[in-house]
Amino acid sequence: MALLEFDKSKPMDIIPMGRAAIDFNPNELNRTLDQVRTFTMYLGGSPANIAVGMAALGKKSGFIGAVSDDQFGTFIENFFKNRNIDTSQIIRAKNGEKLGLTFTEISSPTDSQILMYRNMAADFAVSPEDISEEYIKNSKILLVSGTALAASPSREACFMAIRYAKKHNTKVIFDIDYRPYNWKSLSEVSIYYSLAAQMSDVIMGSREEFDLTENLQYGNNSVSDYEIADKYIALGNKIVIIKHGKKGSVAYGADGKAYKVNSYKVKLLKSFGGGDAYGSAFIYGLLEHWELPECLRHATAHAAMVVASHSCSEAMQDIVSIDKFINERKDEQVITPVDWKVVL
Amino acid sequence: MALLEFDKSKPMDIIPMGRAAIDFNPNELNRTLDQVRTFTMYLGGSPANIAVGMAALGKKSGFIGAVSDDQFGTFIENFFKNRNIDTSQIIRAKNGEKLGLTFTEISSPTDSQILMYRNMAADFAVSPEDISEEYIKNSKILLVSGTALAASPSREACFMAIRYAKKHNTKVIFDIDYRPYNWKSLSEVSIYYSLAAQMSDVIMGSREEFDLTENLQYGNNSVSDYEIADKYIALGNKIVIIKHGKKGSVAYGADGKAYKVNSYKVKLLKSFGGGDAYGSAFIYGLLEHWELPECLRHATAHAAMVVASHSCSEAMQDIVSIDKFINERKDEQVITPVDWKVVL
Amino acid sequence: MALLEFDKSKPMDIIPMGRAAIDFNPNELNRTLDQVRTFTMYLGGSPANIAVGMAALGKKSGFIGAVSDDQFGTFIENFFKNRNIDTSQIIRAKNGEKLGLTFTEISSPTDSQILMYRNMAADFAVSPEDISEEYIKNSKILLVSGTALAASPSREACFMAIRYAKKHNTKVIFDIDYRPYNWKSLSEVSIYYSLAAQMSDVIMGSREEFDLTENLQYGNNSVSDYEIADKYIALGNKIVIIKHGKKGSVAYGADGKAYKVNSYKVKLLKSFGGGDAYGSAFIYGLLEHWELPECLRHATAHAAMVVASHSCSEAMQDIVSIDKFINERKDEQVITPVDWKVVL
Amino acid sequence: MALLEFDKSKPMDIIPMGRAAIDFNPNELNRTLDQVRTFTMYLGGSPANIAVGMAALGKKSGFIGAVSDDQFGTFIENFFKNRNIDTSQIIRAKNGEKLGLTFTEISSPTDSQILMYRNMAADFAVSPEDISEEYIKNSKILLVSGTALAASPSREACFMAIRYAKKHNTKVIFDIDYRPYNWKSLSEVSIYYSLAAQMSDVIMGSREEFDLTENLQYGNNSVSDYEIADKYIALGNKIVIIKHGKKGSVAYGADGKAYKVNSYKVKLLKSFGGGDAYGSAFIYGLLEHWELPECLRHATAHAAMVVASHSCSEAMQDIVSIDKFINERKDEQVITPVDWKVVL
Repeated sequence: MALLEFDKSKPMDIIPMGRAAIDFNPNELNRTLDQVRTFTMYLGGSPANIAVGMAALGKKSGFIGAVSDDQFGTFIENFFKNRNIDTSQIIRAKNGEKLGLTFTEISSPTDSQILMYRNMAADFAVSPEDISEEYIKNSKILLVSGTALAASPSREACFMAIRYAKKHNTKVIFDIDYRPYNWKSLSEVSIYYSLAAQMSDVIMGSREEFDLTENLQYGNNSVSDYEIADKYIALGNKIVIIKHGKKGSVAYGADGKAYKVNSYKVKLLKSFGGGDAYGSAFIYGLLEHWELPECLRHATAHAAMVVASHSCSEAMQDIVSIDKFINERKDEQVITPVDWKVVL
Repeated sequence: MALLEFDKSKPMDIIPMGRAAIDFNPNELNRTLDQVRTFTMYLGGSPANIAVGMAALGKKSGFIGAVSDDQFGTFIENFFKNRNIDTSQIIRAKNGEKLGLTFTEISSPTDSQILMYRNMAADFAVSPEDISEEYIKNSKILLVSGTALAASPSREACFMAIRYAKKHNTKVIFDIDYRPYNWKSLSEVSIYYSLAAQMSDVIMGSREEFDLTENLQYGNNSVSDYEIADKYIALGNKIVIIKHGKKGSVAYGADGKAYKVNSYKVKLLKSFGGGDAYGSAFIYGLLEHWELPECLRHATAHAAMVVASHSCSEAMQDIVSIDKFINERKDEQVITPVDWKVVL
Repeated sequence: MALLEFDKSKPMDIIPMGRAAIDFNPNELNRTLDQVRTFTMYLGGSPANIAVGMAALGKKSGFIGAVSDDQFGTFIENFFKNRNIDTSQIIRAKNGEKLGLTFTEISSPTDSQILMYRNMAADFAVSPEDISEEYIKNSKILLVSGTALAASPSREACFMAIRYAKKHNTKVIFDIDYRPYNWKSLSEVSIYYSLAAQMSDVIMGSREEFDLTENLQYGNNSVSDYEIADKYIALGNKIVIIKHGKKGSVAYGADGKAYKVNSYKVKLLKSFGGGDAYGSAFIYGLLEHWELPECLRHATAHAAMVVASHSCSEAMQDIVSIDKFINERKDEQVITPVDWKVVL
Repeated sequence: MALLEFDKSKPMDIIPMGRAAIDFNPNELNRTLDQVRTFTMYLGGSPANIAVGMAALGKKSGFIGAVSDDQFGTFIENFFKNRNIDTSQIIRAKNGEKLGLTFTEISSPTDSQILMYRNMAADFAVSPEDISEEYIKNSKILLVSGTALAASPSREACFMAIRYAKKHNTKVIFDIDYRPYNWKSLSEVSIYYSLAAQMSDVIMGSREEFDLTENLQYGNNSVSDYEIADKYIALGNKIVIIKHGKKGSVAYGADGKAYKVNSYKVKLLKSFGGGDAYGSAFIYGLLEHWELPECLRHATAHAAMVVASHSCSEAMQDIVSIDKFINERKDEQVITPVDWKVVL
């Protein structure tokens, strides 16, 4: 039996909530940003990428968020519409807020930096009054990106959306997705992350992100991964995924089973973008009521496919391609059952 | 058996958290404020009044909050020190914040208005980093005043304090204490009140305050008092008190018993100040492990004694005086067991 | 011939521009503020005091400024109306701004401190769009208080008012009136004070205030009083008054004559409030086309009468009383012609 | 004799003051911005372009302004250094301010729009304390871009720089350069533009910009160009240039002579960028002590050369090229003496 049961009568599969942004990736590689002359523009922002990923996998995705009231906002809306993502709940920020921009500096294949434009970012302009109870009621999943908790009124909009989700049996996935911008203090990070995490059904994040969520409560890394998993499962979560970068990640289920996940071996073009590919294939599996190992296998396969390409959003794959990739690599052991108290 | 068990090894009885302020009450009564010439200055602010009330009743009280870095801040500290209230966790706001002021307009015995000075109020300057885990660990009760949730960083400081309280078995009393100042929207009120209420052990508020807490979830007054009580008891609260002004209030216990509370008949000098007197005597009873009816009787008696005097903070009574008042009025039936679904 | 000629066809005598506020003076003297129990409330704020002073002297005064939209704002308006000061250009600040408050601490007859409430002060809410060209055109004098330059939009409103005054031959008196609150930096002070001073007809200030106006240009006190006077007379001012506290002050006229002004010997009740009394009697003399020495004699007499009383605004005198005071003290030599390069 | 005499002992020719920014120009033309895929990055911002233009013409240019403390700030500094522009007074904004970005939408050869990123723009971070009196003293010209007056502390920094310039006989050129971003109201625009214009030696702007400067004083276009010129010449300006777009512009000299300036006929690539080319060649002429008509001829020639190319900053010409262009077009009558009261 799957860890999460979805209400099949709900027509929408998933509503990612948070930022949609634009990535400017340099066309001249292996140099610092001040040496670059031309850029290519892509849709970006973790929850927006997940919406695109889910749509590429054939799931019905909506979106909750605010975009700028200018041509860049139109770019986002058009990009979504062209992929059959519902845009009815995307609002236009009306007080001069601008779409977040990410200029990527690819100094070398293994060393990339980003330069963020997030002063008065449009995505924070979504307010609790903008949240439609009906919209959330009609979706199997609400996915909240942690960055959306960094500032008001977006922060309150997220808590309102979670409240509606819990009222109407819409499952809540909390993707911690920490970005250091816009937060006022680490205490603030910890407080709002832990409030969200105690109300979600699935939490995903890196170990660093869980430390941010917990640190004021437990102190410096004095807790094991499984203790974190125990805590959030006790609070009602069904799945907790803790990522350790190149060392792989561990997924803990409320049924007491844990799995280690490793990466497929691929040639990296850039060191970012895999997370959203991972997330969308993983959620695809949940929606298909697959067992946890199968969800995880598709997640790590999708991630591998995306990090080998130039963009995030435009490299999202369909399920046939992912299955083909997995089949071609069937000798690589990427999913392993592990002891609950495993240390990575 | 009492509804709440306290850890007797904790040396502090209660830590009210929130604002300490100054009340300016007019010496010339029955006129509008612009006609007043002289004012008398009193300590004010609901949690500060409760600290004074608890101290008057002989309990060991601390305080968490920020005051202005000027003579008025010194006034608050001295006032507390003179009453043996611990001031070690009172911080001075360093960025020009000023102590909140309340000028009372007593137009007639039944009609009073207030003029508030709360722009850059000092009390909001307390931050999560200011909260001492040890201090909270050493107290039987943490009382959070809802107004402290109205703005950052005080809002986050409250959630941090609640986190420490829950970790160390310090009971949390959430006194909704709504003031329309400083909140940005009613959605914001509802979101943060409901987050606090789902983590507390005791909630006290007027029916209007519970409506603010719930309204976005349930809609316009479509719920009964007992449904609210049920909800918060299910979330872990042991006592829920819902006040209906002159009609009296109802206290719901996690043991399934409910009591109606009425006011003693007294000549009113002013229409405010009773709530903090009520709160401090009620909490006194909890700390004494009294049964709920006895706690409530002292609460309503103390309230009656304070509304008949010119100030709040300086009129707080000791237990001998309250007992004497109750004894003199023993023919007045103020506490009545009622059906759980009673409607006031 | 007088240094300033006024257009007698203009019906209003003077429009002070800037803050109206409330002073709370303690009724219990010779103690620090945290020991005080009761306060008496007076109208305050330098340009408001001058309006009251001019009205007491029988001149037709208006006022430009913003007050709070509450009972304290009503207090100011009523106070002015009762003294026949035109209130048609007093606006109500609509965004929660509050009237400035000054709590006075009179620790001893010679030592007084103030505690100011000026966060989101209502007086800064007057904007250039609020300024009526017609209103200024119809007045002989516009008096700008330097504090009104400390923040926007009041700052821009002052420059707009000065622009209209210069266009319509309304004389501009710049009363530097420096308060350290609300300014962001000393550079800012210097920049806006010097811009105002180069467009005025009369400047009045203490030597410290002139240093603030000049310091970035000249450096630390390397200039004499007369060099400052020379500069501003060259830029078009007709009278420059530089005050040196107890040492007296010097008034420089555009006719090349300078006068030293000393205080009458009186028993001081408090160490503040004389400046506005000085200003109003001095301007009264200008409006009467008196010679400079006669203006100055009345100024210093009026100051002496006011510092001996409990309030500023309510102690303002009529001309008969001032003349009587001067006549009684005719043996005191308070006005002396001095060399232009005199050093105090 | 030239209208402006420069002190030849000053080693620096000109210090433009204001914003340095980045222009992103689309590589795919004739489409709206949301359809563009790749952009080329250029240095932009009017005073930065003028610095580049002056350097291309062989003059010694400095710069006063703030840039972001990131790779884009480094791009600006490197761009300047490579052209021998002094960068010693360029400061790094330290509070998260970002360099202004301008995304250009070239919908058609005659229709271009811009999308500006100016929330918390770095250029406004220069403060009066950052201004070096010595630096300004050592330059023949200070050029203030009007956009730098739109917000604090840059606004105050400009007035400080003008103060130093006037003290040390450094000529002040006020290039109105109005952008609607960042200003709070049109009254504010008018107040600060007119304050700057009454202290400058040369003013350049479009008729719309002069209307913004004057409108609150004079009302709706009820004044002729020559009346504006008269006013600012009376206040001390030596040259006033009022531009009327395609109809040409008129230059008024303090010697009472006026000249009409027309554009050379060129094929337009884009509808912007000519102004800074015009300005730099014009100022080159002033520095060479040329007569006004010769300055203007080079200005309009330089403008014509730059609007025909893809960028502003990188298309700036040297004097040989401009002279060659003028020589080739010697039959085009672009400069004409006109009556002072000419109407365009």
